[in-house]
Amino acid sequence: MRFVTYRTAETGPRLGLVHQGLVIDVEYFGDAIGHDLPATMLDFIDLGPIALRFLQEAVAAATPADLVGTSLPEGNVTLLAPIPRPRKNIFGIGLNYTEHVAESARALDTSDALPKEPVIFSKPPTAVVAWNDPIRHNAKVTQQLDWETELAVVIGQTAHRVAEADALGHVFGYTVINDVSARDCRRAGQWIVSKGQDSFAPMGPAIVTRDEITDPQNLNMWTRVNGVEKQNSNTRFMLFSVAQLIADISGVMTLEPGDIIATGTPAGVGAGRDPQEFMWPGDVVECHVEGIGTLRNPIVAV
Amino acid sequence: MRFVTYRTAETGPRLGLVHQGLVIDVEYFGDAIGHDLPATMLDFIDLGPIALRFLQEAVAAATPADLVGTSLPEGNVTLLAPIPRPRKNIFGIGLNYTEHVAESARALDTSDALPKEPVIFSKPPTAVVAWNDPIRHNAKVTQQLDWETELAVVIGQTAHRVAEADALGHVFGYTVINDVSARDCRRAGQWIVSKGQDSFAPMGPAIVTRDEITDPQNLNMWTRVNGVEKQNSNTRFMLFSVAQLIADISGVMTLEPGDIIATGTPAGVGAGRDPQEFMWPGDVVECHVEGIGTLRNPIVAV
Repeated sequence: MRFVTYRTAETGPRLGLVHQGLVIDVEYFGDAIGHDLPATMLDFIDLGPIALRFLQEAVAAATPADLVGTSLPEGNVTLLAPIPRPRKNIFGIGLNYTEHVAESARALDTSDALPKEPVIFSKPPTAVVAWNDPIRHNAKVTQQLDWETELAVVIGQTAHRVAEADALGHVFGYTVINDVSARDCRRAGQWIVSKGQDSFAPMGPAIVTRDEITDPQNLNMWTRVNGVEKQNSNTRFMLFSVAQLIADISGVMTLEPGDIIATGTPAGVGAGRDPQEFMWPGDVVECHVEGIGTLRNPIVAV
Repeated sequence: MRFVTYRTAETGPRLGLVHQGLVIDVEYFGDAIGHDLPATMLDFIDLGPIALRFLQEAVAAATPADLVGTSLPEGNVTLLAPIPRPRKNIFGIGLNYTEHVAESARALDTSDALPKEPVIFSKPPTAVVAWNDPIRHNAKVTQQLDWETELAVVIGQTAHRVAEADALGHVFGYTVINDVSARDCRRAGQWIVSKGQDSFAPMGPAIVTRDEITDPQNLNMWTRVNGVEKQNSNTRFMLFSVAQLIADISGVMTLEPGDIIATGTPAGVGAGRDPQEFMWPGDVVECHVEGIGTLRNPIVAV
């Protein structure tokens, strides 16, 4: 299933299910079929896999009458970030693709050795913006605003010291995050100022549930800036797989429903190019992961 | 005013005001005087300075009858972390005391140059524990569990690009955080695994409001492990003051009500001692900041 958080001129952020060109409002659809279903993504994730299976079967059995008044054509809604306000910082993974490790060592201050364990940082909830929202370029703060297309994992069930073999069972679904990075804002090696600024975590366009992503380690991904391709890779080149990341993080930091892990970016970032390229007001960046969609954001001066 | 989050055998986490040896339940006290007041610390902080002033005046005018049934002796409640579940990761500041920069450069992998800008990392909400809760020592993960007594700032009002001169006006109050650190869990320079593990952010015992802390840059602070003093300093030795930290962070990451900034630790951490000393199951660590109190936690094997 493909879930979105949407709004219209009349309603605030609401949970929608994309189905045959429609966005079905999950709460209103529940009302129509006589069941309490939640109005937001996080509340739905909290209900666990039972709710997912129930909704799947209910939509399959729905009559057109059930959908009238509970759905809108996709084109008539505005997409927000699927989780507009995470309950904690997003976990980010650095240096998780071999060639990106190499380009980072050339261009930034990182080691050229492959990390032996996942390199973890965070982006606060205030960094999250939606599809089409501006990425804010403050020229007083950065002259090196860079892109990073990433597969992001949304946790569905609490994970505490889970084994790699069990890890994917804790996943609700997948989305796309642009791990926007101001390369000139690193401080004593810490990345949160570089990667955590307001608007530096565009997320979306949707969360696709785990059952529809047969293999999260075989998804093509690309980045385009003003229509020109900058990154083109596949999640199979991750150093640490999604399952390994969940096992690793949950070994020391309990993962909770609604938590988000941005799994790292492949080669082709602006800082690693020769000559270096960065994003400037007026540019448009598109981040694509196969099976999920394309996240598009303009750069705007603030 | 001195606020706590407390529970009893009967009630869950509730907001209390410490007053003349009593913990006044803020919501119940409101009921007694005919006003709606919130049941949790974050809900109270959200109300802003007006609520603080109202409560201050109401408690000053309270009759003994208003307090009967709405308060308990301090000794009869269990203290929880003042904010048991922050809405985002705690902001941590590294290398913010001169002598600690020097000991870190000797013992860890940091530079001996004083940082030119605050060094920022984060600790997830899952790291928060209360006064007296165990700090969990997992011998499979770390052999270098260390203490860091810190003044923590609780934001009261949204701060976006605030000037240093205005910054303290955005503070709700102050508490103590032990920025527990597993020194052998740093990864490619990133500190979240070292500092963000479950139970690595003991917080408390109370939040003391800004009006009672005349000068946040002149507070004595100390650490004792098993009763033996390990750190003894004063917040006047911070490289970046509370006001500078708020101005700096809010310049790029909007600070919101309930946000917490742990402002860094002075010299005397275990990793910086000769020979090095760390915390082990059975140890008890106490972290004190003048005017706020002492945060005491045992180390327990898991």
